[in-house]
Amino acid sequence: MTTHHFAPTHYYTTIGSHEPVLRIQPGDTVITTTVDARGQDVNAQQITAPGNPMTGPFYIEGAEPGDTLVVRLDKLTPNRTYGWTARMLAANVVDPSYVPSLPWPIDGPKGPAKWHVDAEAWTATLVEPETKLGTLTLPLNPMVGCFGVAPAGGQAISTATSAEHGGNMDYNGFVEGVTVYFPVAAAGALFHIGDGHATQGDGEIVGTGIEISFDVQFTVDLLKGQRIGWPRGENEEYIFTCGNARPLDQCVQHATTEMVKWLQEGYGLDAFGANILMGQTVKYDLGNIFDPAFTMVCKMPKRWLP
Amino acid sequence: MTTHHFAPTHYYTTIGSHEPVLRIQPGDTVITTTVDARGQDVNAQQITAPGNPMTGPFYIEGAEPGDTLVVRLDKLTPNRTYGWTARMLAANVVDPSYVPSLPWPIDGPKGPAKWHVDAEAWTATLVEPETKLGTLTLPLNPMVGCFGVAPAGGQAISTATSAEHGGNMDYNGFVEGVTVYFPVAAAGALFHIGDGHATQGDGEIVGTGIEISFDVQFTVDLLKGQRIGWPRGENEEYIFTCGNARPLDQCVQHATTEMVKWLQEGYGLDAFGANILMGQTVKYDLGNIFDPAFTMVCKMPKRWLP
Amino acid sequence: MTTHHFAPTHYYTTIGSHEPVLRIQPGDTVITTTVDARGQDVNAQQITAPGNPMTGPFYIEGAEPGDTLVVRLDKLTPNRTYGWTARMLAANVVDPSYVPSLPWPIDGPKGPAKWHVDAEAWTATLVEPETKLGTLTLPLNPMVGCFGVAPAGGQAISTATSAEHGGNMDYNGFVEGVTVYFPVAAAGALFHIGDGHATQGDGEIVGTGIEISFDVQFTVDLLKGQRIGWPRGENEEYIFTCGNARPLDQCVQHATTEMVKWLQEGYGLDAFGANILMGQTVKYDLGNIFDPAFTMVCKMPKRWLP
Amino acid sequence: MTTHHFAPTHYYTTIGSHEPVLRIQPGDTVITTTVDARGQDVNAQQITAPGNPMTGPFYIEGAEPGDTLVVRLDKLTPNRTYGWTARMLAANVVDPSYVPSLPWPIDGPKGPAKWHVDAEAWTATLVEPETKLGTLTLPLNPMVGCFGVAPAGGQAISTATSAEHGGNMDYNGFVEGVTVYFPVAAAGALFHIGDGHATQGDGEIVGTGIEISFDVQFTVDLLKGQRIGWPRGENEEYIFTCGNARPLDQCVQHATTEMVKWLQEGYGLDAFGANILMGQTVKYDLGNIFDPAFTMVCKMPKRWLP
Repeated sequence: MTTHHFAPTHYYTTIGSHEPVLRIQPGDTVITTTVDARGQDVNAQQITAPGNPMTGPFYIEGAEPGDTLVVRLDKLTPNRTYGWTARMLAANVVDPSYVPSLPWPIDGPKGPAKWHVDAEAWTATLVEPETKLGTLTLPLNPMVGCFGVAPAGGQAISTATSAEHGGNMDYNGFVEGVTVYFPVAAAGALFHIGDGHATQGDGEIVGTGIEISFDVQFTVDLLKGQRIGWPRGENEEYIFTCGNARPLDQCVQHATTEMVKWLQEGYGLDAFGANILMGQTVKYDLGNIFDPAFTMVCKMPKRWLP
Repeated sequence: MTTHHFAPTHYYTTIGSHEPVLRIQPGDTVITTTVDARGQDVNAQQITAPGNPMTGPFYIEGAEPGDTLVVRLDKLTPNRTYGWTARMLAANVVDPSYVPSLPWPIDGPKGPAKWHVDAEAWTATLVEPETKLGTLTLPLNPMVGCFGVAPAGGQAISTATSAEHGGNMDYNGFVEGVTVYFPVAAAGALFHIGDGHATQGDGEIVGTGIEISFDVQFTVDLLKGQRIGWPRGENEEYIFTCGNARPLDQCVQHATTEMVKWLQEGYGLDAFGANILMGQTVKYDLGNIFDPAFTMVCKMPKRWLP
Repeated sequence: MTTHHFAPTHYYTTIGSHEPVLRIQPGDTVITTTVDARGQDVNAQQITAPGNPMTGPFYIEGAEPGDTLVVRLDKLTPNRTYGWTARMLAANVVDPSYVPSLPWPIDGPKGPAKWHVDAEAWTATLVEPETKLGTLTLPLNPMVGCFGVAPAGGQAISTATSAEHGGNMDYNGFVEGVTVYFPVAAAGALFHIGDGHATQGDGEIVGTGIEISFDVQFTVDLLKGQRIGWPRGENEEYIFTCGNARPLDQCVQHATTEMVKWLQEGYGLDAFGANILMGQTVKYDLGNIFDPAFTMVCKMPKRWLP
Repeated sequence: MTTHHFAPTHYYTTIGSHEPVLRIQPGDTVITTTVDARGQDVNAQQITAPGNPMTGPFYIEGAEPGDTLVVRLDKLTPNRTYGWTARMLAANVVDPSYVPSLPWPIDGPKGPAKWHVDAEAWTATLVEPETKLGTLTLPLNPMVGCFGVAPAGGQAISTATSAEHGGNMDYNGFVEGVTVYFPVAAAGALFHIGDGHATQGDGEIVGTGIEISFDVQFTVDLLKGQRIGWPRGENEEYIFTCGNARPLDQCVQHATTEMVKWLQEGYGLDAFGANILMGQTVKYDLGNIFDPAFTMVCKMPKRWLP
């Protein structure tokens, strides 16, 4: 149960079987930092190439393909005051005929919108551009945009996208206190983490949350010989499963299949029980509808579980 | 401001330009009943052909194409104790390769699962089949599965599906106290309503909510010359827009486009303001992923609106 | 085996259970005309409202739900020289981010592109606008854009779209000499036809073919008690099935399912035989990717059939 | 203009920045072999792990990101007589409710269907299982299932799927005589090739073509400084573009956008000319609807090009 303080010196923009930066034991805790999506650090200095640079990978001793890696998100704290977002809805989230009506930055202001993030007050305030919103101050909801484990077969998957291994799911439910489960597909699991958002609406429909660098603390564990198909998670109220694909319909298929299996294999429900229960109680969240693979999350309230 | 007590004698399984059953004024209230999706009434007797039979249509005096019909759902109360649901996830909501693993009723119990609905206790309890869930008692959340106005151009659209006119959206946010806005496309709007659910999970993933007959009360109003593209709604916390299509991606496009227009035309936001605000605060609900057209709902918290 | 000469006096922009314009017997032939998609006739005069106005419906004596209507397209001839097309790719057929780069007619020429259609020479020549193509003269391939039978349950479906009943499939394989099969869903079948194209690329990706009025001759027949799920067709080389839905993936599912059933029920193949044969010999055509419902066509070469 | 005879000794199941097996010059020709999708060689012996093992990568001197690699498929010849296919339609290509009706190999014959491939007679004959097809002998159409160049950013993408770099497109138009263009994204381009099919229906709807090992000859060239977005190709009759994604709608968007750009940038057409021409003359082929990313191909007949 060691606590490791790890200061990253380089970053990866793929999730794959890279040389581990640290070897840790199940039960260990890591305290580290992440840069923002463009590679900007605690001082808002760009120190690495953009594209969701990952801190890690962390090698978890004993992890083998077929196991499940458990990651508890202990602390997620924006560690600077400058955050930024895009200022236009992504072209793919509106009707094709409406695309030309979006505020393309041809003649208008360029660059990202700027936010002042106050981790004491737990708020983010829009600084620029000026809009008819007046002062807009949102509560923080710090979340991990991109994290996961090395995928199978020696793949190195861009941190722009997501799949069975996790990746750029951009789901605003990956917050402090949540426990996440990843399917281990390479020796040591090789956990990567980065792309913090101070907050984000459902779907990441402008293509960003409030992008910012983070202080991060997480604790890992291992479920030996327990095989899962897709990232799973758990908070106080729900267990949940993630489906990463396109179109959203297929995300729902993956997440729903993973949940109906979990209820039967993990909670001892029979098929009729699992099916009937899901039909009347399940909730879905939209992770993102912007990245190359979208994300839908299937949630089951714990109160209905045996 | 008349209150009409209307006892239906026949029902439609399309939403179209049928002969009105009642003519009412903007501001009027209607108290009536609906049968369940299979045409079973307050006594659980089948009195009309199945397939979401509609009560109505109600002709709203003065309504013309280009107006918006306002419908406030005043009361939605299950009026019998027998409710039913399907007992298997719909084949399209799981991975194609998992479909044969679903509990097809080949050798097992047939017919729907049965629920005891207690509108006093505000609960629904699974009666049959017996499962490993033990006793399952859910709180009620009575909602309208299918309602809407006559579509444009003389179409008569099956109550199995949905489109710009509303229809079978099967969204569990259409509950008591919600105000709904429909785009009028025919003289008198021709409002239809039916398909009550005592409760329903997100997505209607077994293809049914807890299907039941309702006592219904609603109040109509008219926004003259105000043209909208898709059904909109409002509750205490949110304004929201509905997109009905396939795949879910397109539902999101319709709902998001309708919302970004509403924020600019209805709330005076500039394009950058509307886009930036939506990016960090919008929520999406999954209405249904079962009907011929699916439904996604885009929600904006009222607290952020100017 | 009567030949009817029918001169239409009014048109419908839905396919539904409208009053028949003519009652005919199985085996009968009809010689008639169709207006173009905007309701323009042989003289290029607009004589009815736009939106794929249909000639018909024709009532086929003896046709009942559960039968199959057979329609042989005997002759399809453009009957005027003026044809028109859209001049921009539909926004939904290019990448969302490319949409603003399309040649929107904001500052440029407005209205449709104009073509000179010469049914003697069997050519269509682009007349306006002038482009860097120089003279563009295409061979004709006259096809029916929209035809079908009354859908089930009293629906009246817009001629903008398509479904099990046929409709606006905009498939350039519906040409002279082809035999088409429709699932009868209402007494008399109620056959509608219109929306002729002098030619059209795959997918109808600008939203039109070369739109023009037609002289039409077709012959009907009836397969009593033979139930099909989707429109089917046959030419010298292929049998084929149509799937109408969104997204294209679902069109493929419908068309493929209809074909694998046809091979087993209609040609006596066993399941393995049908599956293996389809895997290595099947062809797909893209009907349209523009209308509310898209169309994909699954084709099986007759030479491999027992 | 050297001709290299290359005998592979190991294979990759990802396409990525692996150590090159051979360095060649633009203009050079390579004569080599490929194993089948399961890693079986000319003797039908499994010599490497399954999953579309690739021969290569070949390093093309001078190739840099932003260039286009040209690959002419000079010869593609099955080099053994044993071919195999799956015997069931993929679950995702039929209606979800039809999936249980597919011939799942629970109680029936297991393993692949076996074919006798005769490269002299240019035929493939189904050997096993016995079906009601009687003797089924198809003409050969040898094609490359999977080939491409190293993707950008250090990714290593599974040979199960495809993207901008090419990959497992499973398009039956990649045959002898075709010239293919790939966007170079890594120094040396790093060309991989494998997964030969003796023939294949459109869509690879059983998940395989007739899988077999190949003798392969190809010739490379380089277009310096010419940047393309997606794989392109050319045969005697057509130029074509590939879109790899999900759903098929998005494949069409990618392929269509790539074509409209090509016509304007490569053939000097104006926007109206390119749009109008494509609308009435373009053809689409379905590559595959089985792999994680599907493939649609947009084809323009050369006869209409200036």
